Amino acid sequence: MKKLFAEFFGTFWLVFGGCGSAIFAAGYPDLGIGFVGVALAFGLTVLTMAYAVGHISGAHFNPAVSLGLWAGGKFSSKDLLGYIVAQVIGAIAAAGALYLIVSGKSDFVDIGNFAANGYGDLSPGGYSMVSVLIAEFLLTMFFLLIILGSTYPKAPKGFAGIAIGLALTLIHLISIPISNTSVNPARSTSQALFAGGDFTGQLWLFWLAPIAGGLVAGFVHKVLFDKA
Amino acid sequence: MKKLFAEFFGTFWLVFGGCGSAIFAAGYPDLGIGFVGVALAFGLTVLTMAYAVGHISGAHFNPAVSLGLWAGGKFSSKDLLGYIVAQVIGAIAAAGALYLIVSGKSDFVDIGNFAANGYGDLSPGGYSMVSVLIAEFLLTMFFLLIILGSTYPKAPKGFAGIAIGLALTLIHLISIPISNTSVNPARSTSQALFAGGDFTGQLWLFWLAPIAGGLVAGFVHKVLFDKA
Amino acid sequence: MKKLFAEFFGTFWLVFGGCGSAIFAAGYPDLGIGFVGVALAFGLTVLTMAYAVGHISGAHFNPAVSLGLWAGGKFSSKDLLGYIVAQVIGAIAAAGALYLIVSGKSDFVDIGNFAANGYGDLSPGGYSMVSVLIAEFLLTMFFLLIILGSTYPKAPKGFAGIAIGLALTLIHLISIPISNTSVNPARSTSQALFAGGDFTGQLWLFWLAPIAGGLVAGFVHKVLFDKA
Amino acid sequence: MKKLFAEFFGTFWLVFGGCGSAIFAAGYPDLGIGFVGVALAFGLTVLTMAYAVGHISGAHFNPAVSLGLWAGGKFSSKDLLGYIVAQVIGAIAAAGALYLIVSGKSDFVDIGNFAANGYGDLSPGGYSMVSVLIAEFLLTMFFLLIILGSTYPKAPKGFAGIAIGLALTLIHLISIPISNTSVNPARSTSQALFAGGDFTGQLWLFWLAPIAGGLVAGFVHKVLFDKA
Repeated sequence: MKKLFAEFFGTFWLVFGGCGSAIFAAGYPDLGIGFVGVALAFGLTVLTMAYAVGHISGAHFNPAVSLGLWAGGKFSSKDLLGYIVAQVIGAIAAAGALYLIVSGKSDFVDIGNFAANGYGDLSPGGYSMVSVLIAEFLLTMFFLLIILGSTYPKAPKGFAGIAIGLALTLIHLISIPISNTSVNPARSTSQALFAGGDFTGQLWLFWLAPIAGGLVAGFVHKVLFDKA
Repeated sequence: MKKLFAEFFGTFWLVFGGCGSAIFAAGYPDLGIGFVGVALAFGLTVLTMAYAVGHISGAHFNPAVSLGLWAGGKFSSKDLLGYIVAQVIGAIAAAGALYLIVSGKSDFVDIGNFAANGYGDLSPGGYSMVSVLIAEFLLTMFFLLIILGSTYPKAPKGFAGIAIGLALTLIHLISIPISNTSVNPARSTSQALFAGGDFTGQLWLFWLAPIAGGLVAGFVHKVLFDKA
Repeated sequence: MKKLFAEFFGTFWLVFGGCGSAIFAAGYPDLGIGFVGVALAFGLTVLTMAYAVGHISGAHFNPAVSLGLWAGGKFSSKDLLGYIVAQVIGAIAAAGALYLIVSGKSDFVDIGNFAANGYGDLSPGGYSMVSVLIAEFLLTMFFLLIILGSTYPKAPKGFAGIAIGLALTLIHLISIPISNTSVNPARSTSQALFAGGDFTGQLWLFWLAPIAGGLVAGFVHKVLFDKA
Repeated sequence: MKKLFAEFFGTFWLVFGGCGSAIFAAGYPDLGIGFVGVALAFGLTVLTMAYAVGHISGAHFNPAVSLGLWAGGKFSSKDLLGYIVAQVIGAIAAAGALYLIVSGKSDFVDIGNFAANGYGDLSPGGYSMVSVLIAEFLLTMFFLLIILGSTYPKAPKGFAGIAIGLALTLIHLISIPISNTSVNPARSTSQALFAGGDFTGQLWLFWLAPIAGGLVAGFVHKVLFDKA
């Protein structure tokens, strides 16, 4: 139970901080944080919570991470479903809190894309479905390779939270223009539910590509690096 | 006494660095640091002082942190008042130093909002009182969850200063447009005293919401994570 | 073999993340990450992979690093060729992936300079061949001094990945306007091959200067710091 | 001798990286790094060299740091002169290298302020001599408090390089508009020598204020924190 609360709070923080920085601060006139600030925010949600609850739950906050660690032989299949449910609930609760706050803005009209992920017409930079598939697959694959490598027993102790958090910052620096960056089905689900419209119809890709990338990374790590 | 000097210097640095970066550098034409730079500055005041005096006083620099740690059973009630007084005095001294410097600017007219916190008409982005209450409550709650978690005996040793400092950066990346970001009653008090006008009338919220968030986090941590 | 896979993945990530952030996100209207974001991205590719595979291959991801470490007596000559080949192949594979993604953009016309390095007319800020030679030589020399120093037995354990990764960020903060920043012949080669035109004719400099800088640093470290 | 070479290379890197980023990249059209990037660059020069040569010389790179550590009882008076000479020579050599590179720019006319420090008419934001004196004094005092505190035996091991480097980033985030940020007489000297004109006449302040701040910090640390 303690683990599930940790995953709930961690994924709440990831969505509240990452998507919140995008919604509230990215496009603020003149002084806004832009994509650099949003990338930093997403990474810092994971960095901070990794040190806060990593010793409790392992700090996944992301179904693709749980599945990638499972594929790499580092996470038990009996905990999979509970983790993923806690993550999705945490993400949706955070999106609800974001909605409450943003709807109290004096010039509020509607939530816009609410930092949801998309491809084609819904890609910020107009990237095709195939481009987004490749990007989300590769980025999640490397995210998991970094997680599996930096938490490996031979890696320096204690630094994994920095490496993993800043990997998420890096991933956003690359790909916000491509897909608004997912690599995390829970984060995509919560925002698509609120953004509605065509975003929910594109949600399949942001479960498929990150999970495929995570599973391949788990397999690559096990074959190339773990057993050698 | 040594602890109170550490809290005085630490809170001076938090206000001088965080609010100072906002006052001097955020809106500098073309090259200004914007909200990203201010967010980084606030976080680095805590990160740097956490390593400098964390081994002396625990590096609170914030009444909501002292009260949250007390609620979580990690700080003695007999030290509470002294810490809070030292924090508020440090903050006011820093605001005085900022005033001295900024009033020597060749085109100085008045101090403007002096980086004070506000809601409604005084919110940078026009967020309502309720929005600001929710945001300040949630952000301080997570700030304390990160502090309590990253300083827990099972967390990696030495990294808490990085996690806690960068948590404050993250909090500012999210919420400068909402309330100019407080999560710290001492920082709000010093700036409201100098900014005057309606800012002092709104000061109650920036004591209430951060302290409530801190106390709830202390309780949540004790019940969910500490005793399990 | 395990080491060569680590170098392949690490150099792939360096080019995919560093050059990818430049290609996709640097110039995005209004919210783009600019040179600061690209500098951060390059550094984080190395920081993250240093913790992920540093315990496997040493995390070079760069022929000038392998040669500099060899000159400093920290890397075996028998591994040199394999490492450099794995690095160049990883870089070219990443450039191919970047091409696949960017060519799926709705308004794609051509790849432009594809983040390739150049001097004279191909320098972003119009810096001469001599200026670029000096800059690339000095920057790679200091990069290797930092690598050799921070991995020295007397240096604090575990922190080298942070120092080395952020050194690459710093190097980009200085020199993107000068040469688009190489300090890495593998990264220059992959981008020049795709960008074509005059970029391939300038590629010699981005092998010569970084390698010369790396070799001199290895020699300086051995004479001044290692044996004293 | 080894220590003096370390101080030479470290101060070269501080000036080459910090001032170089300002000269080459801060004002680059549209994509320039601005004051945030320059602040990050200055901090990373110290962070990277602290891990590279901190175990050799202690990584001062700054006469005010050497004198502050001496006042705090952490540095021997017999090494003072050698360190300061090596620092000033390193800074001047770096300014020379910057001049060589920037003069090879196709549209080079003159070096402008060359990132030199100034007050009054030479302050970027038009701050008076008194404002600059207060700012440089306070910022160097806190810089030394952070150095003395984070290298204290009770502080977490290995993290001082991060805290000290990022303290310099923070200091620049606050004060580039005030004085172009010195807190380092060596860095001010090298740039004033090249910038010439009125900058050399103002150099006294950038020796006086940082050294006074450093000495006071050494005294404060010794009295309040070291002996208690």
